[in-house]
Amino acid sequence: MRAVDLIAKKRDGMSLTSDEITWFIDAYTAGNLPDYQAAAFLMAVCIRGMEREEIVALTLAMAHSGEVLKLSDILGGYAIDKHSSGGVGDKTTLVVLPLVASCGVPVAKMSGRGLGFSGGTLDKLESIAGYDVNLTTERFEALAKQNGIVLSGQTAQLAPADGKLYALRDVTATVPSLPLIASSIMSKKIAAGANGIVLDVKMGEGAFMTNLEDARQLARMMVEIGVDVGRDMIAVISDMNQPLGEAIGNALEVAEAIETLNGGGPMDFRAHCLEVAGYMLRLAGQGKKWTEPEAVRELLVSHLDGGQALAKFRLLVEAQGGDVRMVDDPSRLPQARFVETVNADQQGYIANVAALEVAVAAFELGAGREKKGDAIDLAVGIKVHVKVGDQTEAGAKLATIYANDAVKIATAREHIVQAIKFTDAPVDPLPLFYDVIDGN
Amino acid sequence: MRAVDLIAKKRDGMSLTSDEITWFIDAYTAGNLPDYQAAAFLMAVCIRGMEREEIVALTLAMAHSGEVLKLSDILGGYAIDKHSSGGVGDKTTLVVLPLVASCGVPVAKMSGRGLGFSGGTLDKLESIAGYDVNLTTERFEALAKQNGIVLSGQTAQLAPADGKLYALRDVTATVPSLPLIASSIMSKKIAAGANGIVLDVKMGEGAFMTNLEDARQLARMMVEIGVDVGRDMIAVISDMNQPLGEAIGNALEVAEAIETLNGGGPMDFRAHCLEVAGYMLRLAGQGKKWTEPEAVRELLVSHLDGGQALAKFRLLVEAQGGDVRMVDDPSRLPQARFVETVNADQQGYIANVAALEVAVAAFELGAGREKKGDAIDLAVGIKVHVKVGDQTEAGAKLATIYANDAVKIATAREHIVQAIKFTDAPVDPLPLFYDVIDGN
Repeated sequence: MRAVDLIAKKRDGMSLTSDEITWFIDAYTAGNLPDYQAAAFLMAVCIRGMEREEIVALTLAMAHSGEVLKLSDILGGYAIDKHSSGGVGDKTTLVVLPLVASCGVPVAKMSGRGLGFSGGTLDKLESIAGYDVNLTTERFEALAKQNGIVLSGQTAQLAPADGKLYALRDVTATVPSLPLIASSIMSKKIAAGANGIVLDVKMGEGAFMTNLEDARQLARMMVEIGVDVGRDMIAVISDMNQPLGEAIGNALEVAEAIETLNGGGPMDFRAHCLEVAGYMLRLAGQGKKWTEPEAVRELLVSHLDGGQALAKFRLLVEAQGGDVRMVDDPSRLPQARFVETVNADQQGYIANVAALEVAVAAFELGAGREKKGDAIDLAVGIKVHVKVGDQTEAGAKLATIYANDAVKIATAREHIVQAIKFTDAPVDPLPLFYDVIDGN
Repeated sequence: MRAVDLIAKKRDGMSLTSDEITWFIDAYTAGNLPDYQAAAFLMAVCIRGMEREEIVALTLAMAHSGEVLKLSDILGGYAIDKHSSGGVGDKTTLVVLPLVASCGVPVAKMSGRGLGFSGGTLDKLESIAGYDVNLTTERFEALAKQNGIVLSGQTAQLAPADGKLYALRDVTATVPSLPLIASSIMSKKIAAGANGIVLDVKMGEGAFMTNLEDARQLARMMVEIGVDVGRDMIAVISDMNQPLGEAIGNALEVAEAIETLNGGGPMDFRAHCLEVAGYMLRLAGQGKKWTEPEAVRELLVSHLDGGQALAKFRLLVEAQGGDVRMVDDPSRLPQARFVETVNADQQGYIANVAALEVAVAAFELGAGREKKGDAIDLAVGIKVHVKVGDQTEAGAKLATIYANDAVKIATAREHIVQAIKFTDAPVDPLPLFYDVIDGN
């Protein structure tokens, strides 16, 4: 095969065979194809699209470019995983993993770091002093078996082809392509070895997908890929027009997760976690157990309110060397030096809490990193106390700024004021979920 | 500006401004943009196309990436140029340049070498012992002034951006894009500095453009570019389903050009040259002189039949160090060791003389080069003695093979037999020209 012939086929809108796609990805990963040929190929895919069979072939080629874990062997049973397409204030993994594990379903998950305006679970976890996100494969497997829960960074080189292609997409304007996004996410999920995967596709102005139709298409595409390679799949499309929960910022989000695991936490975030955990149990039950949504919900609620979920989180932290005193008393988590509130200068209904603008505020305070390897400030961030549809009085507390640099407070305040819009007429609250796409 | 933003605009089918295109090309030529960004950009252009203003900006950016000649200053008047998109047996430049110069219109032209199945004027000229195609800029200008004719390789680094982009297009499947083809050709023509340009766009199975609509679009696009940057433009679309003239191969084509300059030569080739030269004179007359096609034709015919054109060619060869005895007696040109004829094994009408197949035959004999820098055999080639529509008897001479390696004769014969198709019913001859696109 010649790379230039395959590029030409895709340029002309034709479909490539599985063999052709596998050959191209293997050759590129092995360093036998130059970046410029991959760039031309990616642009052709970006504009011409791909058929379902092509997307599956691309996903599998990337998944098999590195180590593929046999998670069900490690866990000695059904392995369930979840993935979020990334949102502002999205600390769902910190809650649903211990919650699901507390129901007797083992979870062994690999997470990533944050970049730009989107946070990463690993960074959040590092707010807990001593928590080790760099486990060896042996330790990862041992903890999974021993505790039924483990949460760390990638132990194996998962889907290196995806890493190489993603870096190239970033600089060649070929990121926004549904087949490329779907295959990128799914290649890592498939390499991570779960039997069932719950996808949380965020939709809204603070998400990568800003409209429902695109989000639906992406969700459907990923469900199809998973189903085609024998995975159990459910995708939910959830709102990301406003932040999820109240906290945005690493230690602040951990504290909010602990609150939620303790039966408290913001209503929207708790409801979101119950829904996602419910789908994870449903898949893990394989149609035999956890088939009644109401019963599943009751079980999960009881594990949040009864302390079982928090106990599992405490076990996770302890096993990975984290300071459990911070779990028992979240005021021990890194604290910002300056805490300032933002108050409403008018009364009315909240018409908008622009998620991206709030993320920018947190980023400006130092909660995020501009490029890979940059240090971040774990203590800083924002809490937003209002949701779209809330009725507020003038002077009411809208948000709290947590800063370590007094100079940055004004900028953060500006972004928050910019983010929150009022109106005189009542406004409907935003839904938590827009759609569910069930692979069964 | 950021390259990735410009690539994204083109990916989404939007138009780029002249400033954006100029910035991109300048940055790439200067080595400030990596090949993979240029590759993604080229693929986006290939699929999305370009507006007229964008194509003009791209052409100018490439033209100005190196030295731009002021040909009219050198010649002290109107400078006329011609360009052929490349065809089998196309030795038109060798005839029309001296023919036009013999009418008092100075011509100073830079030509290229052959690659693959397409020949190059420089290679053909080197069949004449001593002919120097590597003139310095000073010598090029001096000969242009002194003799009103000069024909050599590029003295200046003309449009280096085009060279760099062309090499990249070749390996990224981004060659077949009309805006990219048109701007590539026109950037070099504009950098070469002529006031008026006659384009000979070949159409047919032996040409880059295999159908009339594509050829028309390309011709129109190039005429528009030239007009937009203040050039006088005419494009003809001429047939390349069968070879032009009889000879294919370097010395063979020079001999045929000399025959034609001497009032003889194949009818089709002579007619083709008269037409192209006529348009060159018309442009050079700038609407004041050479306005009557019939009078122009008479003048040109008289210069072919009266020896003035040949005298100008002899002057050209002499001035550039070539052995004029080869012009006076073409049998002194490099001769092949083996000369074999291909005879018809049936009677009938000639339905097809597949130009590409004949080119392959000549290439196999050694008349062309596979890659840049390869040596070629100047003496070898093919003469095809029949044209589509001719009526032939069984045993009639169809073609002559000129070879230096006896082993290769059989292969060449096979290709020729493959190329020439017969039919029992009369066949119309192919037209020489399909269309003329006049920029005025």
